[in-house]
Amino acid sequence: MTALPTLLTGVVPPVCTPLTPDNEVDVASLERLVDHLVGAGVDALFVLGSSSEAAYLPDGHRRTVVSTVVRHAGGQLPVLAGAIDMTTLRVLDHVRDAADAGADGVVVTAPFYTRTHPAEIARHYRLVAERGGLPVFAYDLPVSVHTKLDADLVLDLAADGTLAGLKDSSGDDGGLRRVILGAPPAFSVLTGSELTVDSALAMGAHGVVPGLGNVDPDGYVRLYRAARAGDRDGARAEQERLCALFGMTETGSPARMGRSSSSLGAFKAALHLRGVIAHPTTAVPQIPLSPEDVERVGKHLATAGLL
Amino acid sequence: MTALPTLLTGVVPPVCTPLTPDNEVDVASLERLVDHLVGAGVDALFVLGSSSEAAYLPDGHRRTVVSTVVRHAGGQLPVLAGAIDMTTLRVLDHVRDAADAGADGVVVTAPFYTRTHPAEIARHYRLVAERGGLPVFAYDLPVSVHTKLDADLVLDLAADGTLAGLKDSSGDDGGLRRVILGAPPAFSVLTGSELTVDSALAMGAHGVVPGLGNVDPDGYVRLYRAARAGDRDGARAEQERLCALFGMTETGSPARMGRSSSSLGAFKAALHLRGVIAHPTTAVPQIPLSPEDVERVGKHLATAGLL
Amino acid sequence: MTALPTLLTGVVPPVCTPLTPDNEVDVASLERLVDHLVGAGVDALFVLGSSSEAAYLPDGHRRTVVSTVVRHAGGQLPVLAGAIDMTTLRVLDHVRDAADAGADGVVVTAPFYTRTHPAEIARHYRLVAERGGLPVFAYDLPVSVHTKLDADLVLDLAADGTLAGLKDSSGDDGGLRRVILGAPPAFSVLTGSELTVDSALAMGAHGVVPGLGNVDPDGYVRLYRAARAGDRDGARAEQERLCALFGMTETGSPARMGRSSSSLGAFKAALHLRGVIAHPTTAVPQIPLSPEDVERVGKHLATAGLL
Amino acid sequence: MTALPTLLTGVVPPVCTPLTPDNEVDVASLERLVDHLVGAGVDALFVLGSSSEAAYLPDGHRRTVVSTVVRHAGGQLPVLAGAIDMTTLRVLDHVRDAADAGADGVVVTAPFYTRTHPAEIARHYRLVAERGGLPVFAYDLPVSVHTKLDADLVLDLAADGTLAGLKDSSGDDGGLRRVILGAPPAFSVLTGSELTVDSALAMGAHGVVPGLGNVDPDGYVRLYRAARAGDRDGARAEQERLCALFGMTETGSPARMGRSSSSLGAFKAALHLRGVIAHPTTAVPQIPLSPEDVERVGKHLATAGLL
Repeated sequence: MTALPTLLTGVVPPVCTPLTPDNEVDVASLERLVDHLVGAGVDALFVLGSSSEAAYLPDGHRRTVVSTVVRHAGGQLPVLAGAIDMTTLRVLDHVRDAADAGADGVVVTAPFYTRTHPAEIARHYRLVAERGGLPVFAYDLPVSVHTKLDADLVLDLAADGTLAGLKDSSGDDGGLRRVILGAPPAFSVLTGSELTVDSALAMGAHGVVPGLGNVDPDGYVRLYRAARAGDRDGARAEQERLCALFGMTETGSPARMGRSSSSLGAFKAALHLRGVIAHPTTAVPQIPLSPEDVERVGKHLATAGLL
Repeated sequence: MTALPTLLTGVVPPVCTPLTPDNEVDVASLERLVDHLVGAGVDALFVLGSSSEAAYLPDGHRRTVVSTVVRHAGGQLPVLAGAIDMTTLRVLDHVRDAADAGADGVVVTAPFYTRTHPAEIARHYRLVAERGGLPVFAYDLPVSVHTKLDADLVLDLAADGTLAGLKDSSGDDGGLRRVILGAPPAFSVLTGSELTVDSALAMGAHGVVPGLGNVDPDGYVRLYRAARAGDRDGARAEQERLCALFGMTETGSPARMGRSSSSLGAFKAALHLRGVIAHPTTAVPQIPLSPEDVERVGKHLATAGLL
Repeated sequence: MTALPTLLTGVVPPVCTPLTPDNEVDVASLERLVDHLVGAGVDALFVLGSSSEAAYLPDGHRRTVVSTVVRHAGGQLPVLAGAIDMTTLRVLDHVRDAADAGADGVVVTAPFYTRTHPAEIARHYRLVAERGGLPVFAYDLPVSVHTKLDADLVLDLAADGTLAGLKDSSGDDGGLRRVILGAPPAFSVLTGSELTVDSALAMGAHGVVPGLGNVDPDGYVRLYRAARAGDRDGARAEQERLCALFGMTETGSPARMGRSSSSLGAFKAALHLRGVIAHPTTAVPQIPLSPEDVERVGKHLATAGLL
Repeated sequence: MTALPTLLTGVVPPVCTPLTPDNEVDVASLERLVDHLVGAGVDALFVLGSSSEAAYLPDGHRRTVVSTVVRHAGGQLPVLAGAIDMTTLRVLDHVRDAADAGADGVVVTAPFYTRTHPAEIARHYRLVAERGGLPVFAYDLPVSVHTKLDADLVLDLAADGTLAGLKDSSGDDGGLRRVILGAPPAFSVLTGSELTVDSALAMGAHGVVPGLGNVDPDGYVRLYRAARAGDRDGARAEQERLCALFGMTETGSPARMGRSSSSLGAFKAALHLRGVIAHPTTAVPQIPLSPEDVERVGKHLATAGLL
C-alpha cells in the first residue's frame, strides 16, 4: 500500500481485466498489463471500473484483481479500486475486500437498480466514507447508474470531507467544470472522458482515467505532460491522435452486440495484438468481436504506429 | 425443498426482509412474517425480490434470508429466490447460494448497469439456466433494470425451455398479454402489478406476486380464489379494496425520499403496526418514514379493517 | 357539431389520415374511412391523434382533416380533435382551428420538447380549458411526451372541471385504474391500449380509442358490446383475436425503420388492401413498408377473415 | 438578408423573445435587445431557439420575431432562425416563413414526439434541405428531442452538403469533437454549451451560441476574441467569470418550477434589471420567478459588474 497523495493527479488508467477463455482472471496477463502501464509512466492505477469489466466479475475475481495489482505494483504507485454495487451495505463489503487487499482508495457510484433520491445518495456516501476506512472517490457514470451526480451534491460532500475526489465519466464537461471551480484544494477531479482530456486539464482537472489508456498509455502520458508543461498545441495534437485511435471501439456492429462488448472487446483485442495479454476474451454474456472486427482493430493500431 | 409444481400458480408474495435497527436480518420477525403469509393460504414464497430489499442486502444477509425461509416453510410450499446482480457470473454465484440453501427456483433480471443487447440478454439467461441447475424465472422490472424484456425474446426462451416462467413487474399489461397468449402450457406467467391482479388473471396469468401481499395476504388470497372460481365481480371488489390500501405507499413525501423508501417503508410500518415484525427499519441509505407518515399508514390499515 | 354526451363512452377510433403519394390529405379516402368506421357502429371519432399522424401533418392538413370529418359525419356522432403541440399558446391555436371546424372536444398532451413541471402542466390544462372554449381531454402518451401524467394531477383537474376526460395511452393499467376509481361520475376515461380493452372496461373505463380499430372496427364494436353486456368470455375471445391481428404492426423491421413507420404503415397497408383507402402512403420522413412487409400484413388480414 | 458567410463563426447569441405581460411579442424590447447584442460585437443572431422560447411561441409570434430582427439588423449580420417542429412537413412550413421573413439559414432538430430512426432522421434533413431553399444547421438538443444526433450521421449529412453546420447543445463535448475532426472545411460547428466555450474553441469549434450571451454579450465576445488571438488564459478567465454568472439560472426552486422557467426567467429578469427589455415575462405555462429569485439574479449581475 502506497500512501495516497493529498491530491491525486496524472494518468490513472482503469486497468482492463485479462481473462482466460473460460472466464477466470488471467493473473500473468494482468501482471504484464500492469507492467505495460507502469512502464509508460502512469501515476496511479484504477482497478474494477467499467473498463475492468467490474460489472461482470464475481467477488472472487474482484479480490484476485485487487490483490494481484497491489502485490505487483502497490509499492510503486497508488491503486484505487472500484466498489461497484447497488447500495451501501453491499458496497461496504467490497470496500472491506479492497482494504484487505491493500487498495489505497475506493471509487463508488450512487445507488443504482433501486429508485433513489439526493438525500439517499448523500447518506450513502457518508456511510461508505465513515464505515469503509478508505478515501472515497465518487464515480459519476449516468449511462450505467441512470442518475447524474449533481454538482452541488458533489461539492457539499467534498466540502465536508466525505469525498476525496470525483471520477467523472458523465461526458458533461459543463458539470465537470462546476465541480472544478467549486471544490476545495485537496479534492481530486479526474475525467474519464477519453476524447476531451486536453480540455479537462485546461479547465483545471487534476487527472485522467482513460479506458483507451490500456492500449496506448504512452499517448496519454505524453498528453498529460504536454498539458502540464503548458504546451497546449502539443496536448491537442496528441489528443486528436488518440481520438482517431478511439475509433476502434466502434468496430463491433450495434446490430450484433452491445456497446460494452464492442468497446471492451476492442481494447482487449488491441492488447492481445500488441502482445500484452494472452487472450482477448471478454466476460460472458458479452458477444465476442468477429475476426473481421479484430482485423479492423489491428488497422487502427497500425495507423497509430502501435503494432 | 419442495418440488416446484410443473406450473407455478396462485399467490406468491415477495417476502419483505425484516431488519433490526442496525440493519441485521431479524430472523425471528422473518419467521413470523412467513407464518403470517403461509397462514393466509399463499401458494409459494418469493424471497430476495424488490420488496425484500434485495438490492440493499449484502450476500450474507441474502443467504440468511433464503435459508431461514426454506428451513421454516420449505416443506410446505415452494420458495423462489431472487438472484439479483449485474451480469451472468455474479448471478450464478447467487444461484449457487440459493440452491445450497434449498430454494426451488430463481428469479433473474436481464443484465443491468452495463449496456446490453438482446443477444446478450438471451445468452445471459441460457448460461444461467445451463449452469445454475435451478428453474429460472425471468424478472421484468424496467424501472430498475432500464431494459424492458421484449415479449418475443421471452417467448423464444420459454419455447426452448430456458425459462420456467416470467415475473412481470413492468406495468405493461399489453406486453404481459402477448406472453400469456404465446407461451407453452408449462410456462408460468406471474404478475407483479398489485393494482391489476384481477385483470391479469382474467387474461390468463397463472399467479400474482404482490408486494402489498405482505401487509394483506388474506386479501390477495381471496382475490385469487374469487378469480379462479369465476366470480369476477368479487375479484374486482377485492382488488379495488386493495387499490385503496395501496395508497399507503405514497405517504412518504417525494421531496424527502425516493419511492423505494416510501413504498417499503410503508409495508414495513404496516407489518410493525400489525404486530408481525419487531422493527419497521428499512435498509440504509433509505430514508425512514416520519411519525406522521406512519400515522397515515395506520389510518390506511384502520380503514381496511386490518388493525 | 353534435353535442358531446355528458359522458363519452364506447368505441372512439383514432382515425387514420389517408394521404396521396405526394403527402396531401386524400379527402375522398378519408370520407370512405369515416363511412367504414361509422358503418361498423362506432360511438365517436377521434381525429389528429398519433394514429392520424398528427405529428406529421402541417396545420393546413390538420384543418382539412377536422373539417372533412365533421362535415361528413358530424351530425351523426361526436368528433374529438387532437390539439397536439409543444405548449399552451401553440395548443390554443389548434383548439381554435378545431372549434372553427366544428369539433366537439379536444385532446391535449402535457407540454413537451421543453422541460416541464407538474405545476406547469396544471397551469397548461387550466389555460387551455379556460381560453379554448371546448371540452378538454388529457392525452397521456409518455412514449411521445416523455412525461407521465400523474394520476393525482389528473384527478385534481377532473375534480375542478378543467378536464372532461382522459385518453390513456400510457400502457400503465395500474395508473389508469387509479384514475377510474378516483374520478367524478361525468369524467370519461378512455383507454388507448389496444391489447387490454377488455381489462380496461372490466375496471370501469368508459371507452376505447384503438388504432387497430381503423382496420377492424367491427371487432372492437363487438368487444365493447360484449363487455357492456357482461359477456366477459366473449369480450376476451374477441380481444385475443384482435391481439393476434395487432401482430401486423411488427412487420416493418426495426433495423430499417422506426416504430411509427411500422405501425402506421401496417394500418394503412391493411386499409388499402381492404379497399378503404386509395394509397397506403405514410407521411415523410417515415420509411415505407417493403412489398414483403405488405404481404405479411395481408396474411394477418386473411387469418382474421378480413380480406 | 445578409449572405451567410461560407463558414459561420464567432458569437451567435440565441436571442431571447421579450414578451408583454399578456404574452404578445414586445417588438420595441426585441429591437433594444438586438441593439444590445449587435452593439457588443456579436457575429450573427439566432432567433427561435430554446432561449427564444420557440417552443412556447405560436406561429404568428414566430413570424413577428424573425421579421422584426431581420428588419432591424438584417443588413448588418446574418440571422439564423429555428424551425422547431415535430416532423418534416411542419418544419418546412416554418422554413418557408423564415425564408419569407428574410432569414439567412434555419436550425432544425431531428423529428421529435414521434418515435424515429436514423434512416428517418437522415431523410428528414435531406427533405428539409432540398425543399426549404435555405442553408440548414442541425440542432442537437437531446434534452428536448430525446434523440442524440449521432456524430457519424451528422458527418454523412455534412459530407453530402445536406447540412451547412451543427448547433450542438448536447453537452457531449466528446461527440462534438468527433464532428469537428471529421467535418469538411466549410461545415460550421457551433457549441451551445455556455460553460465550455473556451474548450470548444480550443478543439476547433467555429462559434458559440450562448443563452447567457443575452445577458452578457460583451463577455462572450471578449472570450471569443481572446480564444481566437491565442490568449488561452484570458479566454479561460473570462469563461470562469461567465460560469459564475450562469449560477443565476438556478435561482428558481425545482420544487416550484421546471428548468425552462428557471433559466429563461433568470435571463429575462437580468435583461429587465439591466434596462434592456420592458418586462421580464416568460410565456405560459412557465412559472414566474418570485421577487426573492429576482433579487438573487440581481446579486449575480452586481457581482459580475453588470448593474
